[in-house]
Amino acid sequence: MKKAVCLLSGGLDSTVTAAIAKSKGYRIYALTFDYGQRHRREIESAKKVARYLKASEHKILKIDLAQIGGSALTDKKIKVPKGKAYAQIKASKEIPVTYVPARNTILLSFALAYAEVVGADVIFIGANHMDYSGYPDCRPQYYKAYQRMANLATKRAVQGTEIKVEYPIIELDKKAIVKRGIRLKAPLHLTWSCYSGGKKACGRCDSCVLRLNGFKEAGIEDPVEYESQ
Amino acid sequence: MKKAVCLLSGGLDSTVTAAIAKSKGYRIYALTFDYGQRHRREIESAKKVARYLKASEHKILKIDLAQIGGSALTDKKIKVPKGKAYAQIKASKEIPVTYVPARNTILLSFALAYAEVVGADVIFIGANHMDYSGYPDCRPQYYKAYQRMANLATKRAVQGTEIKVEYPIIELDKKAIVKRGIRLKAPLHLTWSCYSGGKKACGRCDSCVLRLNGFKEAGIEDPVEYESQ
Repeated sequence: MKKAVCLLSGGLDSTVTAAIAKSKGYRIYALTFDYGQRHRREIESAKKVARYLKASEHKILKIDLAQIGGSALTDKKIKVPKGKAYAQIKASKEIPVTYVPARNTILLSFALAYAEVVGADVIFIGANHMDYSGYPDCRPQYYKAYQRMANLATKRAVQGTEIKVEYPIIELDKKAIVKRGIRLKAPLHLTWSCYSGGKKACGRCDSCVLRLNGFKEAGIEDPVEYESQ
Repeated sequence: MKKAVCLLSGGLDSTVTAAIAKSKGYRIYALTFDYGQRHRREIESAKKVARYLKASEHKILKIDLAQIGGSALTDKKIKVPKGKAYAQIKASKEIPVTYVPARNTILLSFALAYAEVVGADVIFIGANHMDYSGYPDCRPQYYKAYQRMANLATKRAVQGTEIKVEYPIIELDKKAIVKRGIRLKAPLHLTWSCYSGGKKACGRCDSCVLRLNGFKEAGIEDPVEYESQ
């Protein structure tokens, strides 16, 4: 059985992506980052999802992006925006304040190291650019360039074994991601998407708004609990 | 004054590279990693070098590469090789056990994030492939690919400002690096290259052997202290 490193945040997108890797027959090496995010509840979700998908290993790496800052997700002085309507988020060409500088580049780099150590052939990442087209590191051309760089970066690559980067949901919107998840029996009930740090999902941050709309459009009830509005 | 992020390990190569950045008129934002390396003495050297070069800021980031392992520098179960002759190290086509999986990719990714947050235009890295031709992430073609990826990865890049990666000593051998350092009045006396964790440099690990030989060929006495042989 081939091995795949799956970047698993505990959110909807990475969970569906890991379920895709599983459905393709890979042994899963889940990799989660404790990067000073406000929504630490995600990490607990990632643990449950990894167990559910019978991951061979689940590594939780502590990296302190808060020391670098520059994002509403890692810097307490920058407010997480709330209450924007779905259409407005989708239509926005601006890069949101929840963009974390070079985040996917950093996460993929650890995934590359981890893939090299465990001997994985593929790294799965649940990026998608349909909802947040503003995030530069969620675009297909970025992943193509990353792949080319990765092919020159490691011992395995030099010795002739490529480590591939797969981003299977990059062209899907939230509705399609929910549907794919349901079809693959992904544990959507264990996921956590809210940017705020509450006990229940807030239902109002960008991430909740996009998620709720995705479930609504898919005609499926979101199994996670929300604060009463 | 333009800003440059300088990756500063505290070793000879990164110190000379930072001195090059300084000589080109950049304001220096030094970035050092506390990555579970055995030779932690390096970090103290980095602090002294950053002060000496009047860095505008010196960030020391804790990242736990030991959790990933796979290298003699981060895994205590893998022995650091000692006593290899200079010619043998230079001639070796093998990737040494001191190779840390995807290390430069990880370090550059944090540098990219840091550069974006402080508004730096350049990242300086003191990689060179003359001595350790075996390290895949010390080759010019790797840096070219990294640069292409970086140009797609960040908010600044999307908005039209490139963050350049400079690797000015990549073609130099240790003799030339020592000479360049002397010419630029780089604080070579504050640097630390030894892979072992002792109070004085061991004089026998690959890194010490290469360094000592570089000083010898340059006709300059190494200002750091070594264990008596």
